[in-house]
Amino acid sequence: MRPKIYLFGDSITEDSFSEGGWGASLANHFSRTVDVVLRGYSGYNTRWVLKVLDRVFPATQSGDGGIDGAPIAVTVFFGANDASLPDRYSGFQHVPLDEFKQNLHSIVSFIKKQWPTTVVLLITPPPIDEDGRIKHPYAENPEGLPERTNEAAGEYARACITVAGECGIPVIDLWRKMQQCPSWRKDFLWDGLHLTRRGNQVVFEEVVKKLKDEGLSLESIPIDLPPIADIDHNDPLKAFQLKAFQL
Amino acid sequence: MRPKIYLFGDSITEDSFSEGGWGASLANHFSRTVDVVLRGYSGYNTRWVLKVLDRVFPATQSGDGGIDGAPIAVTVFFGANDASLPDRYSGFQHVPLDEFKQNLHSIVSFIKKQWPTTVVLLITPPPIDEDGRIKHPYAENPEGLPERTNEAAGEYARACITVAGECGIPVIDLWRKMQQCPSWRKDFLWDGLHLTRRGNQVVFEEVVKKLKDEGLSLESIPIDLPPIADIDHNDPLKAFQLKAFQL
Repeated sequence: MRPKIYLFGDSITEDSFSEGGWGASLANHFSRTVDVVLRGYSGYNTRWVLKVLDRVFPATQSGDGGIDGAPIAVTVFFGANDASLPDRYSGFQHVPLDEFKQNLHSIVSFIKKQWPTTVVLLITPPPIDEDGRIKHPYAENPEGLPERTNEAAGEYARACITVAGECGIPVIDLWRKMQQCPSWRKDFLWDGLHLTRRGNQVVFEEVVKKLKDEGLSLESIPIDLPPIADIDHNDPLKAFQLKAFQL
Repeated sequence: MRPKIYLFGDSITEDSFSEGGWGASLANHFSRTVDVVLRGYSGYNTRWVLKVLDRVFPATQSGDGGIDGAPIAVTVFFGANDASLPDRYSGFQHVPLDEFKQNLHSIVSFIKKQWPTTVVLLITPPPIDEDGRIKHPYAENPEGLPERTNEAAGEYARACITVAGECGIPVIDLWRKMQQCPSWRKDFLWDGLHLTRRGNQVVFEEVVKKLKDEGLSLESIPIDLPPIADIDHNDPLKAFQLKAFQL
Protein backbone atom coordinates (compact mmCIF):
# COMPACT_ATOMS: atom_id res chain seq x y z
CA MET A 1 0.00 0.00 0.00
CA ARG A 2 1.24 3.48 -0.74
CA PRO A 3 2.32 5.49 2.31
CA LYS A 4 0.75 8.85 3.12
CA ILE A 5 1.98 12.25 4.28
CA TYR A 6 -0.60 14.61 5.75
CA LEU A 7 -0.15 18.36 5.39
CA PHE A 8 -1.93 19.89 8.36
CA GLY A 9 -2.15 23.62 8.81
CA ASP A 10 -3.88 26.90 8.06
CA SER A 11 -4.27 28.81 4.76
CA ILE A 12 -0.58 28.46 3.93
CA THR A 13 -1.27 24.73 3.84
CA GLU A 14 -4.76 24.94 2.31
CA ASP A 15 -3.33 27.01 -0.56
CA SER A 16 -0.39 24.68 -1.06
CA PHE A 17 -1.83 23.02 -4.18
CA SER A 18 -2.28 26.30 -6.04
CA GLU A 19 0.13 26.95 -8.91
CA GLY A 20 3.71 26.46 -7.73
CA GLY A 21 2.46 25.51 -4.26
CA TRP A 22 4.64 23.53 -1.86
CA GLY A 23 2.04 20.78 -1.40
CA ALA A 24 1.65 20.18 -5.13
CA SER A 25 5.44 20.16 -5.46
CA LEU A 26 5.66 17.51 -2.73
CA ALA A 27 2.96 15.41 -4.43
CA ASN A 28 4.88 15.74 -7.71
CA HIS A 29 8.18 14.88 -6.03
CA PHE A 30 6.67 11.74 -4.45
CA SER A 31 4.39 10.99 -7.43
CA ARG A 32 5.16 7.26 -7.52
CA THR A 33 5.83 6.65 -3.85
CA VAL A 34 3.69 8.66 -1.41
CA ASP A 35 0.16 10.08 -1.26
CA VAL A 36 0.34 13.69 -0.12
CA VAL A 37 -2.93 14.43 1.64
CA LEU A 38 -4.12 18.00 2.20
CA ARG A 39 -5.61 19.01 5.53
CA GLY A 40 -5.36 22.78 5.37
CA TYR A 41 -7.91 24.99 7.15
CA SER A 42 -7.76 28.63 6.19
CA GLY A 43 -7.89 31.02 9.11
CA TYR A 44 -7.64 28.33 11.77
CA ASN A 45 -5.50 28.65 14.88
CA THR A 46 -4.34 25.94 17.27
CA ARG A 47 -7.26 26.55 19.67
CA TRP A 48 -9.87 25.80 17.00
CA VAL A 49 -7.89 22.89 15.62
CA LEU A 50 -7.81 21.17 19.00
CA LYS A 51 -11.61 21.01 18.87
CA VAL A 52 -11.61 19.05 15.62
CA LEU A 53 -8.47 16.89 15.73
CA ASP A 54 -10.48 13.67 15.85
CA ARG A 55 -12.35 14.76 12.73
CA VAL A 56 -9.18 15.74 10.86
CA PHE A 57 -7.41 12.50 11.83
CA PRO A 58 -10.05 9.84 12.49
CA ALA A 59 -8.87 6.72 14.31
CA THR A 60 -7.49 4.15 11.89
CA GLN A 61 -8.01 0.43 12.08
CA SER A 62 -4.38 -0.55 12.04
CA GLY A 63 -1.24 1.23 13.10
CA ASP A 64 1.10 -0.59 10.77
CA GLY A 65 1.39 1.86 7.92
CA GLY A 66 -1.05 0.06 5.66
CA ILE A 67 -3.46 1.92 3.43
CA ASP A 68 -5.76 2.55 6.37
CA GLY A 69 -3.01 2.95 8.89
CA ALA A 70 -0.43 5.41 10.05
CA PRO A 71 0.88 8.11 7.74
CA ILE A 72 4.66 8.15 7.47
CA ALA A 73 4.68 11.87 8.28
CA VAL A 74 2.47 14.80 9.23
CA THR A 75 3.52 18.42 8.76
CA VAL A 76 2.03 20.68 11.44
CA PHE A 77 2.15 24.28 10.26
CA PHE A 78 0.31 26.72 12.53
CA GLY A 79 1.03 29.95 14.32
CA ALA A 80 0.40 32.60 11.66
CA ASN A 81 -3.16 33.08 12.94
CA ASP A 82 -2.41 32.50 16.61
CA ALA A 83 0.11 35.37 16.31
CA SER A 84 -2.53 37.88 15.13
CA LEU A 85 -2.44 40.83 17.51
CA PRO A 86 -5.31 40.63 20.05
CA ASP A 87 -6.34 44.27 19.68
CA ARG A 88 -6.42 44.52 15.88
CA TYR A 89 -9.03 43.34 13.35
CA SER A 90 -7.85 39.70 13.32
CA GLY A 91 -7.94 39.58 17.11
CA PHE A 92 -10.60 36.85 17.02
CA GLN A 93 -7.90 34.50 15.67
CA HIS A 94 -5.35 35.38 18.37
CA VAL A 95 -4.18 32.72 20.81
CA PRO A 96 -1.90 33.74 23.71
CA LEU A 97 1.68 32.48 23.43
CA ASP A 98 1.52 30.09 26.40
CA GLU A 99 -1.69 28.55 25.17
CA PHE A 100 -0.21 28.23 21.67
CA LYS A 101 2.67 26.21 23.10
CA GLN A 102 0.33 24.03 25.10
CA ASN A 103 -1.91 23.52 22.06
CA LEU A 104 1.03 22.50 19.88
CA HIS A 105 2.02 19.97 22.54
CA SER A 106 -1.52 18.60 22.51
CA ILE A 107 -1.55 18.32 18.71
CA VAL A 108 1.76 16.48 18.65
CA SER A 109 0.63 14.17 21.48
CA PHE A 110 -2.62 13.38 19.69
CA ILE A 111 -0.81 12.37 16.52
CA LYS A 112 1.94 10.45 18.33
CA LYS A 113 -0.55 8.59 20.51
CA GLN A 114 -2.51 7.48 17.45
CA TRP A 115 0.54 6.77 15.28
CA PRO A 116 3.70 6.35 17.40
CA THR A 117 6.05 5.82 14.43
CA THR A 118 4.82 8.77 12.36
CA VAL A 119 7.28 11.62 11.80
CA VAL A 120 5.66 14.82 13.07
CA LEU A 121 7.35 17.82 11.46
CA LEU A 122 6.61 21.24 12.92
CA ILE A 123 6.89 24.30 10.68
CA THR A 124 7.07 27.76 12.25
CA PRO A 125 4.97 30.60 10.87
CA PRO A 126 6.69 32.62 8.13
CA PRO A 127 7.96 36.14 8.80
CA ILE A 128 5.52 39.01 8.32
CA ASP A 129 6.03 41.98 6.02
CA GLU A 130 3.99 44.60 7.84
CA ASP A 131 3.85 46.95 4.84
CA GLY A 132 2.38 44.12 2.81
CA ARG A 133 -0.26 43.52 5.48
CA ILE A 134 -1.24 47.19 5.46
CA LYS A 135 -1.55 47.14 1.65
CA HIS A 136 -3.57 43.88 1.63
CA PRO A 137 -5.87 44.01 4.66
CA TYR A 138 -8.49 41.25 5.03
CA ALA A 139 -11.04 43.57 6.58
CA GLU A 140 -11.74 47.25 7.01
CA ASN A 141 -8.69 48.70 8.68
CA PRO A 142 -9.32 52.39 9.34
CA GLU A 143 -6.37 52.63 11.75
CA GLY A 144 -4.02 51.56 8.96
CA LEU A 145 -2.04 49.39 11.39
CA PRO A 146 -0.94 45.84 10.52
CA GLU A 147 -2.99 43.09 12.24
CA ARG A 148 0.14 40.94 12.41
CA THR A 149 3.74 41.95 13.13
CA ASN A 150 7.01 40.23 12.36
CA GLU A 151 8.04 40.50 15.99
CA ALA A 152 4.94 38.62 17.16
CA ALA A 153 5.37 35.98 14.43
CA GLY A 154 8.96 35.54 15.65
CA GLU A 155 7.79 34.87 19.22
CA TYR A 156 5.41 32.17 17.96
CA ALA A 157 8.15 30.73 15.76
CA ARG A 158 10.47 30.46 18.77
CA ALA A 159 7.70 28.84 20.79
CA CYS A 160 7.28 26.31 18.01
CA ILE A 161 10.99 25.49 18.12
CA THR A 162 10.84 25.11 21.91
CA VAL A 163 7.92 22.67 21.61
CA ALA A 164 9.77 20.67 18.95
CA GLY A 165 12.74 20.42 21.30
CA GLU A 166 10.56 19.36 24.22
CA CYS A 167 8.84 16.72 22.07
CA GLY A 168 12.05 15.57 20.39
CA ILE A 169 10.67 16.13 16.91
CA PRO A 170 12.04 17.98 13.85
CA VAL A 171 11.12 21.57 13.08
CA ILE A 172 11.61 23.96 10.17
CA ASP A 173 12.37 27.49 11.34
CA LEU A 174 10.70 29.14 8.38
CA TRP A 175 10.64 32.51 10.12
CA ARG A 176 14.41 32.61 10.38
CA LYS A 177 15.18 30.75 7.14
CA MET A 178 13.25 33.20 4.96
CA GLN A 179 14.81 36.24 6.60
CA GLN A 180 18.26 35.01 5.61
CA CYS A 181 17.42 36.35 2.14
CA PRO A 182 17.64 40.18 2.20
CA SER A 183 14.72 40.55 -0.24
CA TRP A 184 12.45 38.11 1.68
CA ARG A 185 9.54 40.54 1.90
CA LYS A 186 8.96 40.72 -1.84
CA ASP A 187 10.52 37.43 -2.89
CA PHE A 188 8.65 35.13 -0.56
CA LEU A 189 5.40 36.89 0.45
CA TRP A 190 2.79 38.36 -1.86
CA ASP A 191 0.56 40.03 0.75
CA GLY A 192 2.98 40.20 3.62
CA LEU A 193 1.90 36.76 4.93
CA HIS A 194 1.04 34.26 2.16
CA LEU A 195 3.67 32.70 -0.03
CA THR A 196 4.77 33.59 -3.54
CA ARG A 197 6.02 30.87 -5.88
CA ARG A 198 9.54 31.36 -4.51
CA GLY A 199 8.24 31.29 -0.95
CA ASN A 200 6.49 28.02 -1.72
CA GLN A 201 9.74 26.69 -3.17
CA VAL A 202 11.54 27.43 0.12
CA VAL A 203 8.94 25.45 2.09
CA PHE A 204 9.04 22.57 -0.41
CA GLU A 205 12.82 22.31 -0.27
CA GLU A 206 12.94 22.52 3.52
CA VAL A 207 10.27 19.84 3.93
CA VAL A 208 12.07 17.49 1.51
CA LYS A 209 15.33 18.08 3.39
CA LYS A 210 13.82 17.48 6.84
CA LEU A 211 11.96 14.36 5.70
CA LYS A 212 15.23 13.05 4.28
CA ASP A 213 16.93 13.68 7.64
CA GLU A 214 14.20 11.49 9.13
CA GLY A 215 14.87 8.71 6.62
CA LEU A 216 11.98 9.54 4.29
CA SER A 217 13.15 10.15 0.71
CA LEU A 218 12.84 8.85 -2.84
CA GLU A 219 15.87 6.69 -2.07
CA SER A 220 14.28 5.04 0.96
CA ILE A 221 10.61 4.73 -0.01
CA PRO A 222 9.97 1.94 -2.52
CA ILE A 223 8.19 2.69 -5.79
CA ASP A 224 5.00 0.65 -6.09
CA LEU A 225 5.28 -0.50 -9.69
CA PRO A 226 8.23 -0.70 -12.11
CA PRO A 227 9.35 2.58 -13.69
CA ILE A 228 9.37 2.63 -17.50
CA ALA A 229 13.18 2.59 -17.51
CA ASP A 230 13.12 -0.87 -15.89
CA ILE A 231 10.82 -2.38 -18.50
CA ASP A 232 12.46 -4.70 -21.04
CA HIS A 233 11.48 -3.54 -24.53
CA ASN A 234 11.64 -7.10 -25.79
CA ASP A 235 9.52 -8.58 -23.00
CA PRO A 236 7.61 -5.81 -21.19
CA LEU A 237 5.28 -8.10 -19.26
CA LYS A 238 8.20 -9.73 -17.46
CA ALA A 239 8.46 -6.64 -15.23
CA PHE A 240 4.95 -7.19 -13.92
CA GLN A 241 5.57 -10.73 -12.77
CA LEU A 242 8.20 -9.59 -10.27
CA LYS A 243 6.87 -9.77 -6.77
CA ALA A 244 9.61 -7.42 -5.63
CA PHE A 245 7.36 -4.53 -6.54
CA GLN A 246 4.67 -5.62 -4.14
CA LEU A 247 5.15 -3.91 -0.84
CA MET B 1 -14.62 11.02 6.16
CA ARG B 2 -13.33 12.93 3.18
CA PRO B 3 -14.17 11.40 -0.21
CA LYS B 4 -11.46 10.50 -2.72
CA ILE B 5 -10.95 10.85 -6.45
CA TYR B 6 -8.28 8.68 -8.05
CA LEU B 7 -6.42 9.91 -11.13
CA PHE B 8 -5.37 6.78 -13.00
CA GLY B 9 -3.34 6.98 -16.18
CA ASP B 10 0.05 7.26 -17.86
CA SER B 11 2.63 10.07 -17.82
CA ILE B 12 -0.01 12.71 -18.56
CA THR B 13 -1.50 11.71 -15.22
CA GLU B 14 1.81 11.09 -13.40
CA ASP B 15 2.96 14.61 -14.37
CA SER B 16 -0.33 16.19 -13.37
CA PHE B 17 1.01 17.62 -10.11
CA SER B 18 3.85 19.50 -11.78
CA GLU B 19 3.50 23.29 -12.00
CA GLY B 20 0.12 24.19 -13.46
CA GLY B 21 -0.80 20.50 -13.74
CA TRP B 22 -4.43 19.40 -13.98
CA GLY B 23 -4.16 17.06 -10.97
CA ALA B 24 -2.78 19.79 -8.70
CA SER B 25 -5.50 22.14 -9.96
CA LEU B 26 -8.14 19.56 -9.07
CA ALA B 27 -6.64 19.07 -5.61
CA ASN B 28 -6.66 22.84 -5.15
CA HIS B 29 -10.24 23.15 -6.43
CA PHE B 30 -11.41 20.45 -4.00
CA SER B 31 -9.00 21.48 -1.22
CA ARG B 32 -11.59 21.30 1.57
CA THR B 33 -13.82 18.56 0.20
CA VAL B 34 -12.05 15.75 -1.69
CA ASP B 35 -8.69 13.98 -1.57
CA VAL B 36 -7.28 13.80 -5.09
CA VAL B 37 -5.08 10.71 -5.24
CA LEU B 38 -2.45 10.26 -7.92
CA ARG B 39 -2.03 6.90 -9.66
CA GLY B 40 -0.10 7.87 -12.77
CA TYR B 41 2.36 5.43 -14.36
CA SER B 42 4.61 6.96 -16.97
CA GLY B 43 4.89 4.94 -20.18
CA TYR B 44 2.21 2.42 -19.24
CA ASN B 45 -0.37 1.12 -21.68
CA THR B 46 -3.63 -0.70 -20.95
CA ARG B 47 -2.03 -4.14 -21.38
CA TRP B 48 0.51 -3.52 -18.62
CA VAL B 49 -2.02 -1.84 -16.39
CA LEU B 50 -4.30 -4.89 -16.49
CA LYS B 51 -1.52 -6.89 -14.86
CA VAL B 52 -1.36 -4.59 -11.86
CA LEU B 53 -4.93 -3.35 -11.32
CA ASP B 54 -5.25 -5.16 -8.00
CA ARG B 55 -2.07 -3.45 -6.80
CA VAL B 56 -3.19 -0.01 -8.00
CA PHE B 57 -6.65 -0.40 -6.43
CA PRO B 58 -6.40 -2.88 -3.54
CA ALA B 59 -9.68 -4.28 -2.26
CA THR B 60 -11.23 -2.04 0.37
CA GLN B 61 -12.91 -3.17 3.53
CA SER B 62 -16.16 -1.35 2.99
CA GLY B 63 -17.91 -0.16 -0.13
CA ASP B 64 -19.80 2.66 1.48
CA GLY B 65 -17.64 5.63 0.64
CA GLY B 66 -15.98 5.79 4.03
CA ILE B 67 -12.33 6.65 4.40
CA ASP B 68 -11.37 3.11 3.50
CA GLY B 69 -14.12 2.63 0.97
CA ALA B 70 -15.09 3.57 -2.52
CA PRO B 71 -13.71 6.67 -4.18
CA ILE B 72 -16.40 8.97 -5.54
CA ALA B 73 -14.68 9.00 -8.93
CA VAL B 74 -11.78 7.56 -10.90
CA THR B 75 -10.41 9.18 -14.05
CA VAL B 76 -9.05 6.60 -16.51
CA PHE B 77 -6.72 8.29 -18.96
CA PHE B 78 -4.86 5.87 -21.26
CA GLY B 79 -4.30 5.39 -24.95
CA ALA B 80 -1.39 7.71 -25.71
CA ASN B 81 1.06 4.80 -25.32
CA ASP B 82 -1.22 2.10 -26.75
CA ALA B 83 -1.42 4.25 -29.90
CA SER B 84 2.37 4.24 -30.44
CA LEU B 85 3.02 2.90 -33.93
CA PRO B 86 4.10 -0.77 -33.77
CA ASP B 87 7.01 -0.38 -36.21
CA ARG B 88 8.65 2.72 -34.71
CA TYR B 89 10.88 3.13 -31.65
CA SER B 90 8.02 3.13 -29.12
CA GLY B 91 6.59 -0.05 -30.66
CA PHE B 92 7.10 -1.93 -27.37
CA GLN B 93 4.33 0.23 -25.89
CA HIS B 94 1.89 -0.40 -28.75
CA VAL B 95 -1.37 -2.24 -28.09
CA PRO B 96 -3.62 -3.16 -31.04
CA LEU B 97 -6.86 -1.20 -31.24
CA ASP B 98 -9.20 -4.13 -30.54
CA GLU B 99 -7.16 -5.20 -27.53
CA PHE B 100 -7.12 -1.58 -26.30
CA LYS B 101 -10.92 -1.52 -26.35
CA GLN B 102 -11.13 -4.84 -24.57
CA ASN B 103 -8.58 -3.71 -21.99
CA LEU B 104 -10.50 -0.48 -21.30
CA HIS B 105 -13.64 -2.58 -20.79
CA SER B 106 -11.74 -4.76 -18.31
CA ILE B 107 -10.42 -1.74 -16.41
CA VAL B 108 -13.89 -0.20 -16.13
CA SER B 109 -15.39 -3.56 -15.06
CA PHE B 110 -12.71 -4.03 -12.41
CA ILE B 111 -13.42 -0.63 -10.87
CA LYS B 112 -17.22 -0.94 -11.13
CA LYS B 113 -17.21 -4.45 -9.63
CA GLN B 114 -15.20 -3.22 -6.65
CA TRP B 115 -17.03 0.08 -6.28
CA PRO B 116 -20.42 0.03 -8.05
CA THR B 117 -21.34 3.63 -7.21
CA THR B 118 -18.02 5.19 -8.24
CA VAL B 119 -18.08 7.53 -11.25
CA VAL B 120 -15.60 6.19 -13.81
CA LEU B 121 -14.60 8.98 -16.19
CA LEU B 122 -12.71 8.02 -19.34
CA ILE B 123 -10.40 10.55 -20.97
CA THR B 124 -9.23 10.01 -24.54
CA PRO B 125 -5.58 10.50 -25.46
CA PRO B 126 -4.73 14.06 -26.56
CA PRO B 127 -4.01 14.84 -30.19
CA ILE B 128 -0.42 14.42 -31.41
CA ASP B 129 1.70 17.12 -33.01
CA GLU B 130 3.98 15.01 -35.18
CA ASP B 131 6.50 17.80 -35.74
CA GLY B 132 6.79 18.13 -31.96
CA ARG B 133 7.43 14.39 -31.65
CA ILE B 134 10.20 14.55 -34.26
CA LYS B 135 11.83 17.48 -32.44
CA HIS B 136 11.56 15.78 -29.02
CA PRO B 137 12.19 12.06 -29.57
CA TYR B 138 12.49 9.81 -26.50
CA ALA B 139 15.07 7.57 -28.11
CA GLU B 140 17.46 7.50 -31.03
CA ASN B 141 15.35 8.10 -34.09
CA PRO B 142 17.60 7.87 -37.15
CA GLU B 143 14.62 7.58 -39.52
CA GLY B 144 13.34 10.95 -38.34
CA LEU B 145 9.76 9.67 -38.37
CA PRO B 146 7.31 10.33 -35.50
CA GLU B 147 6.70 7.31 -33.24
CA ARG B 148 3.10 8.50 -32.74
CA THR B 149 0.70 10.08 -35.25
CA ASN B 150 -2.37 12.19 -34.75
CA GLU B 151 -4.38 9.84 -36.95
CA ALA B 152 -3.56 6.83 -34.76
CA ALA B 153 -4.29 8.80 -31.57
CA GLY B 154 -7.66 9.69 -33.11
CA GLU B 155 -8.52 6.03 -33.65
CA TYR B 156 -7.74 5.25 -30.01
CA ALA B 157 -9.74 8.29 -28.93
CA ARG B 158 -12.78 7.06 -30.89
CA ALA B 159 -12.34 3.58 -29.41
CA CYS B 160 -12.36 5.16 -25.96
CA ILE B 161 -15.63 6.96 -26.74
CA THR B 162 -17.15 3.71 -28.03
CA VAL B 163 -16.21 1.91 -24.83
CA ALA B 164 -17.68 4.73 -22.71
CA GLY B 165 -20.93 4.38 -24.67
CA GLU B 166 -20.99 0.62 -24.24
CA CYS B 167 -20.34 0.94 -20.50
CA GLY B 168 -22.72 3.86 -20.05
CA ILE B 169 -20.06 6.05 -18.45
CA PRO B 170 -18.92 9.63 -19.13
CA VAL B 171 -15.97 10.42 -21.38
CA ILE B 172 -13.91 13.50 -22.24
CA ASP B 173 -13.00 13.61 -25.92
CA LEU B 174 -9.73 15.42 -25.35
CA TRP B 175 -8.48 14.58 -28.84
CA ARG B 176 -11.33 16.47 -30.46
CA LYS B 177 -11.69 19.17 -27.82
CA MET B 178 -8.09 20.33 -28.12
CA GLN B 179 -8.20 20.43 -31.90
CA GLN B 180 -11.09 22.90 -31.78
CA CYS B 181 -8.41 25.50 -31.04
CA PRO B 182 -6.49 26.27 -34.27
CA SER B 183 -3.20 26.73 -32.40
CA TRP B 184 -3.57 23.50 -30.39
CA ARG B 185 -0.14 22.16 -31.36
CA LYS B 186 1.79 24.93 -29.66
CA ASP B 187 -0.78 26.02 -27.13
CA PHE B 188 -1.52 22.67 -25.53
CA LEU B 189 1.48 20.40 -26.19
CA TRP B 190 5.12 21.10 -25.39
CA ASP B 191 6.70 18.05 -27.03
CA GLY B 192 3.89 17.07 -29.35
CA LEU B 193 2.32 14.79 -26.72
CA HIS B 194 2.64 16.10 -23.15
CA LEU B 195 0.66 19.06 -21.90
CA THR B 196 1.65 22.69 -21.51
CA ARG B 197 0.11 24.77 -18.74
CA ARG B 198 -2.76 25.68 -21.08
CA GLY B 199 -3.18 22.05 -22.09
CA ASN B 200 -3.37 21.12 -18.42
CA GLN B 201 -5.96 23.83 -17.92
CA VAL B 202 -8.15 22.28 -20.64
CA VAL B 203 -8.05 18.88 -18.90
CA PHE B 204 -8.76 20.44 -15.50
CA GLU B 205 -11.78 22.36 -16.78
CA GLU B 206 -13.20 19.38 -18.66
CA VAL B 207 -12.83 17.09 -15.64
CA VAL B 208 -14.53 19.62 -13.34
CA LYS B 209 -17.37 19.97 -15.88
CA LYS B 210 -17.87 16.22 -16.34
CA LEU B 211 -17.76 15.56 -12.59
CA LYS B 212 -20.37 18.27 -12.12
CA ASP B 213 -22.57 16.58 -14.76
CA GLU B 214 -22.30 13.46 -12.59
CA GLY B 215 -23.37 15.36 -9.49
CA LEU B 216 -19.89 15.85 -8.03
CA SER B 217 -19.07 19.50 -7.41
CA LEU B 218 -18.22 21.99 -4.69
CA GLU B 219 -21.96 22.62 -4.40
CA SER B 220 -22.82 18.97 -3.78
CA ILE B 221 -19.88 17.69 -1.71
CA PRO B 222 -19.99 18.88 1.90
CA ILE B 223 -17.03 20.70 3.42
CA ASP B 224 -15.65 18.81 6.41
CA LEU B 225 -15.12 21.70 8.81
CA PRO B 226 -16.51 25.25 8.92
CA PRO B 227 -14.94 27.76 6.53
CA ILE B 228 -13.48 30.86 8.15
CA ALA B 229 -16.35 32.96 6.72
CA ASP B 230 -18.82 30.97 8.86
CA ILE B 231 -16.97 31.57 12.11
CA ASP B 232 -18.50 34.10 14.47
CA HIS B 233 -15.83 36.63 15.44
CA ASN B 234 -17.44 37.08 18.83
CA ASP B 235 -17.71 33.38 19.61
CA PRO B 236 -15.45 31.38 17.29
CA LEU B 237 -15.70 28.09 19.20
CA LYS B 238 -19.45 27.92 18.61
CA ALA B 239 -18.78 26.82 15.02
CA PHE B 240 -16.95 23.72 16.22
CA GLN B 241 -19.80 22.46 18.37
CA LEU B 242 -22.08 22.06 15.37
CA LYS B 243 -22.49 18.42 14.45
CA ALA B 244 -23.68 19.42 11.00
CA PHE B 245 -20.07 19.48 9.90
CA GLN B 246 -19.56 15.85 10.76
CA LEU B 247 -20.24 13.72 7.71
